Amino acid sequence: MADVSILTEAELRACVTLDRGAVDIVEEAFAALGRGGVVMPPILSMAIAEKHGEVDVKTAYVPGLPAFAIKVSPGFFDNPKKGLPSLNGLMMLLDSETGIVRAVLLDNGYLTDVRTAAAGGVAARHLAPRGVETVGIIGAGVQAELQARALRLERDYRRLLVWARDPGKVAAHAAAMREALGIEVEIAASREALVRASQVVVTTTPSTEPLIEAAWLHPGLHITAMGSDAPNKNELAPEILAAGRFVCDRTSQSATVGELRTAIAAGILPADHVPDELGAICAGLKPGRQSEDEVTICDLTGTGVQDTAIATHAHRVALARGFGQIVRS
Amino acid sequence: MADVSILTEAELRACVTLDRGAVDIVEEAFAALGRGGVVMPPILSMAIAEKHGEVDVKTAYVPGLPAFAIKVSPGFFDNPKKGLPSLNGLMMLLDSETGIVRAVLLDNGYLTDVRTAAAGGVAARHLAPRGVETVGIIGAGVQAELQARALRLERDYRRLLVWARDPGKVAAHAAAMREALGIEVEIAASREALVRASQVVVTTTPSTEPLIEAAWLHPGLHITAMGSDAPNKNELAPEILAAGRFVCDRTSQSATVGELRTAIAAGILPADHVPDELGAICAGLKPGRQSEDEVTICDLTGTGVQDTAIATHAHRVALARGFGQIVRS
Repeated sequence: MADVSILTEAELRACVTLDRGAVDIVEEAFAALGRGGVVMPPILSMAIAEKHGEVDVKTAYVPGLPAFAIKVSPGFFDNPKKGLPSLNGLMMLLDSETGIVRAVLLDNGYLTDVRTAAAGGVAARHLAPRGVETVGIIGAGVQAELQARALRLERDYRRLLVWARDPGKVAAHAAAMREALGIEVEIAASREALVRASQVVVTTTPSTEPLIEAAWLHPGLHITAMGSDAPNKNELAPEILAAGRFVCDRTSQSATVGELRTAIAAGILPADHVPDELGAICAGLKPGRQSEDEVTICDLTGTGVQDTAIATHAHRVALARGFGQIVRS
Repeated sequence: MADVSILTEAELRACVTLDRGAVDIVEEAFAALGRGGVVMPPILSMAIAEKHGEVDVKTAYVPGLPAFAIKVSPGFFDNPKKGLPSLNGLMMLLDSETGIVRAVLLDNGYLTDVRTAAAGGVAARHLAPRGVETVGIIGAGVQAELQARALRLERDYRRLLVWARDPGKVAAHAAAMREALGIEVEIAASREALVRASQVVVTTTPSTEPLIEAAWLHPGLHITAMGSDAPNKNELAPEILAAGRFVCDRTSQSATVGELRTAIAAGILPADHVPDELGAICAGLKPGRQSEDEVTICDLTGTGVQDTAIATHAHRVALARGFGQIVRS
């Protein structure tokens, strides 16, 4: 018997937005991962082929936080035909001392959107060059928008280039971004033109084939690849991982569901390659960007520490505001 | 945005009890597992050593059921010092067609108790001899009680022998069982005496060392070992698995967290040994007990199909009774 706080998406949206505070919270979670003591088991992943669906469960215990999140992320890709979003889900918060359920966050994936974009902000904070005039974003979905916003929190860029496969979608996306950011937004003629003209590039797609070639890289470029999170996905040509400093959020995940997987399979990096992790950089144990001319690449597969960080933050704000329905379990 | 039904432990207790209906439902889930088409990924398991805690997440998609469960089971073993139960947890039900969250079952582990005991009933239904006079139960916890009750649903036994390490606990347990079952209940002088005098024995402990020796086995005995669910646990001497017909709920789980693990480690069974699974027996693909004299052993590690079966059943009953708080996520 315990009081469980049930929070809705609307309440959670009122409590958490993508701002510097959210980036700080996710940065601190990565730093905890870098310092050690975090317990983060492999992702539970279930494919329901006959329904064109999948479910991922992520969790991480972070010492010092009052609770840890368990996140359930279903993706059912026939949903749009039914007028429903593909992605859904919820998070639970369990007390770090007793394991007792404290809160159920019915966020329908909103907190995941925020913590994923915030990780892009953390990567840029440490790895993007100081001077960023132009950012290029590949993809036209929710993360294409949120990553552009997260980068604006870290670098005062003046021009956004966008590219996506679907011309109608990219036009609508460009118009929306122009409105939202109040800066110059252009649709790039090609992915190559986008990469060559940008100081920071973010890939935000479910692509299964490389979208960026190594020949397009140039001094001072930072790339964040945040789309790949499954063993069939890939956004960067494997040579790219050896063409600059490669950093990832979690080596074991990048090697199984991220960009490191493809680079190892292609023989570009050895199977036992140990890249620097973003958390070690956040913790000050490894350097961030070391010169304006360096080429840096960061693969984000999505980690349980981000979920625990954003969920404990959301719960704290919600409690302070008196939000949530209390159910005595 | 979807309507999510929040159900409390009290409501769930009113909807689901350990009866033949519950055993039937769990039997049908095992049969589905035996027939194939079920998707059941490996258990997500997280040990939080610094808090003496652990969390397991189980799930299974069962074709034909309207939803699938994801179950979160925390165990924090310092809780009793704080006056709290060690085990807690909740289940979620996701729509089988869309992945959308339909219900959150704040059962604090109650449904797990029922489905675990029901699996003992299923094992006895197919593997216990017809004529059972005496049942022996090792352990004095919740499952010691529930397994004795589940067996009464399947075999009309007249005498219960109990044994547990703690003399005070076992005395209270024996008195409670006498009251609950209205049959003869005796505290066995030893585990050996208990096994030798029983036709069905159930082990219900978190033991890490064998509680039953092979020399105590006798014609017609059925043993269900339901305690082991972690790589350090073990209730049966490894020789026992070769001393009769060995069946388990899920080979991959028994080989990693159950009795098969110890038998393989001891060289009693080969690492690639493929026992019959209980589901294949429930589906009629493999025989149950084949003679009154056969010795049978069943290892139950606990499976996601049981969770999906009991949770969908509980939700159906709760909806029919108008139970649950509806939260628009």
